[in-house]
Amino acid sequence: MTQKPSIPKGTRDFTPSQMACRNYIFDTVKEVFRSFGYSEIQTPSMENLSTLLGKYGDEGDKLLFRILNSGDPFDGVDFASFRNPEGGFRSAALSKELCGKGLRYDLTVPFARFVVQHQNELSFPFKRYQIQPVWRADRPQKGRYREFYQCDVDVVGSNSQLCELELVQIVSAVFRKLGIRVLLKINNRKVLQGLAEVCGFPEKVVDITVAIDKLDKTGLEAVREELLSKGLTSEAVAVLEPVLSLSGTTAGKISAMRSVLSGSETGIKGLDELEELFGFIDAAGVDCPVEMDLSLARGLNYYTGAIFEVKAADWEIGSICGGGRYDNLTGIFGLQNMSGVGISFGADRIYDVLAGLDKFPAGLGTPATLLFANMDAASASYVLPIASALRSRGVSAEVYPDQGKLRRQFDYAARKGIPFISICGSTEAESGTVNIKNLSDGEQKSFGREDVEGMLAFMA
Amino acid sequence: MTQKPSIPKGTRDFTPSQMACRNYIFDTVKEVFRSFGYSEIQTPSMENLSTLLGKYGDEGDKLLFRILNSGDPFDGVDFASFRNPEGGFRSAALSKELCGKGLRYDLTVPFARFVVQHQNELSFPFKRYQIQPVWRADRPQKGRYREFYQCDVDVVGSNSQLCELELVQIVSAVFRKLGIRVLLKINNRKVLQGLAEVCGFPEKVVDITVAIDKLDKTGLEAVREELLSKGLTSEAVAVLEPVLSLSGTTAGKISAMRSVLSGSETGIKGLDELEELFGFIDAAGVDCPVEMDLSLARGLNYYTGAIFEVKAADWEIGSICGGGRYDNLTGIFGLQNMSGVGISFGADRIYDVLAGLDKFPAGLGTPATLLFANMDAASASYVLPIASALRSRGVSAEVYPDQGKLRRQFDYAARKGIPFISICGSTEAESGTVNIKNLSDGEQKSFGREDVEGMLAFMA
Repeated sequence: MTQKPSIPKGTRDFTPSQMACRNYIFDTVKEVFRSFGYSEIQTPSMENLSTLLGKYGDEGDKLLFRILNSGDPFDGVDFASFRNPEGGFRSAALSKELCGKGLRYDLTVPFARFVVQHQNELSFPFKRYQIQPVWRADRPQKGRYREFYQCDVDVVGSNSQLCELELVQIVSAVFRKLGIRVLLKINNRKVLQGLAEVCGFPEKVVDITVAIDKLDKTGLEAVREELLSKGLTSEAVAVLEPVLSLSGTTAGKISAMRSVLSGSETGIKGLDELEELFGFIDAAGVDCPVEMDLSLARGLNYYTGAIFEVKAADWEIGSICGGGRYDNLTGIFGLQNMSGVGISFGADRIYDVLAGLDKFPAGLGTPATLLFANMDAASASYVLPIASALRSRGVSAEVYPDQGKLRRQFDYAARKGIPFISICGSTEAESGTVNIKNLSDGEQKSFGREDVEGMLAFMA
Repeated sequence: MTQKPSIPKGTRDFTPSQMACRNYIFDTVKEVFRSFGYSEIQTPSMENLSTLLGKYGDEGDKLLFRILNSGDPFDGVDFASFRNPEGGFRSAALSKELCGKGLRYDLTVPFARFVVQHQNELSFPFKRYQIQPVWRADRPQKGRYREFYQCDVDVVGSNSQLCELELVQIVSAVFRKLGIRVLLKINNRKVLQGLAEVCGFPEKVVDITVAIDKLDKTGLEAVREELLSKGLTSEAVAVLEPVLSLSGTTAGKISAMRSVLSGSETGIKGLDELEELFGFIDAAGVDCPVEMDLSLARGLNYYTGAIFEVKAADWEIGSICGGGRYDNLTGIFGLQNMSGVGISFGADRIYDVLAGLDKFPAGLGTPATLLFANMDAASASYVLPIASALRSRGVSAEVYPDQGKLRRQFDYAARKGIPFISICGSTEAESGTVNIKNLSDGEQKSFGREDVEGMLAFMA
């Protein structure tokens, strides 16, 4: 009864070398998050479906992975009552009957649920990061997975633009540490709302947002056509067009926009926020280029203030990090007036950029520094306490478990990238010595068995 | 449409302070695993149900969380054909029809699947660790969860007792670092098999194993009754009884067993393995007490050699770590002759022991060292580059985002356990100085804004 092993489509195994690279990314972002005082939380992989449904649009509801109720999930279910008159079943309703839980779809909704549920235990403004997998029943394709990690950092409970600044600083610090040159683009949803107002279609801000979000990909003419197809007049589109192709300095753009949006209180508020944020960015001094881009709108329509997007300067892959401010996130769970702002780092894309640009540090996947070859049981017993002494000084050391051909043991060291090998037989055991060989240059040296300092220096 | 937020029963949120404690455990085990040359892998949360079914017994199959197929899972399903004649549905068959995937139940079966699937990419002996959640639809109760982390460390592809030794050393190092006194018990499944043989019921080794595993809990008389109820003769039980109450040194126990098991080749092989392992333990020098215990059998019946169990000496909680050698794990996936040995650390129980004994280090949950209070926008801009300079020197620093009552900002520092606060207003900005106050002793000092070294020394 042999099975050919496989894993579900859209999921992945991570081998040691892949994990070493992934951990390099996770460790880097965590170190930066912590340096700004963010704390880690985790939420369960499964949430009640009532927590998830309706939060990601109709399309999102369909992409939720649902978990069959345990016990006997079919007991008492009247399947006939879920039949469609035209055949088949009312799939959504029947799924809900059979499944009370689903796998989380992102980290934002669980975070909102967490904040409301634990509000009395938390200190606000609450600064948290969360690095966990999420699941989406998307059609798998290159670079799109059904299970993938999100790295989110958010602060809730403050309206200050200093929060936005902190996220800008975090973006800058993370990509500087990773050695990736990036461009950070910033917009403000209130400015988009203001634009919708001054062109006479305040209720169409979502349509307008969705259309101009495509400016990068489809160009001005396609955006123009989409806007007209959504019911905007050509006069309204004419108001928008020059704004989308604004260029020059941030101060110049803001100043130009102030006259365009003078009739919209919301729009002016958005410009005030942008101006304050860019003032803080100047004061703090940020390494990466930061650009105001009024065509940046992102698909998500729950942002209410700042909108962020980060692209790699030297590798074509789309956005590698993005986020924004949301005023109403916890409202659905009963906690009003809790504004937050956050960004999410795309670990898989960052991985692809680092791999593509060959920017992963050398030696990431090397678990051990020294391999003690195994000559026989007596020699193994001789080296065991020496290996322990080295480990207690922070050296990762292996003792090859099997006796046998030395060639095989050398191969093992080579395949794992272990840079030093020690071959101690009865001669060394009798003389109380340890020899260590540097496998890259062949240099070999002998030490007294107690001379841990000497061994450390040789392998340093 | 306000929802009262909640999470599925048996699952947990982890707050910042809980995560800090959990990460302390995970970081400690990882550091030890790495010092012995083990590499991390990860496998998907979902596996094909065919990978999981039949690996954990009938009871385990029922405890698998199943994931409803995506798309339209009900399309073409003839529910009537799954009806039981006596009412209800054939639940297992219908579940299989609707769900092709399940959440992983442990890390061992996915690891076996991984080894077979990636055998050509791996170096053997393959030493891996894996720290990920697993899911079981168990009835939730105190200390038992439906989602919990396992920390597994295994080596496959070697029969050497040096592998067992390494796990013993890892156990010892982990609990020494955590400050938990433990007792490590070791047995060998081959010895149990030998016992079954010499008492004349070689086919009943599982029954015998299950019965004597309960010796600790129910006592000798109950074990005796269970063995008789399983069909053993009282003569057979009489052979077993003295063995179960053996005491004395390991060498003495092994020597006594050699005569009992002289008729069983398997039993003698088990004693040879134990003797070799204890020899290595003596040679390496291991901190924690290690005891041979012939009544240690553990429920899992896939072990074929060494069996390990670790208990805390100063806290009553059952086993906090356990494992053993399995010769046939990858066989079901088509890879024969791949012996492995591994152990699993129970993170939740270790957490409870550390909490119960008050052994978590102080200050674990403190994300930042210094809080810059926020007096007004101009002062915030003044401190921003100073905060950046401190962060680049490894200090975690926050700038409070909102202006407002200082009392509130002090409260924030106190609740988060931030030990230092800096209050810079226009006076400091004009004079180019920074004051820092130690909140625990009230000591306050002023520095030039460039004097990062001075600030570091004050907060060291």
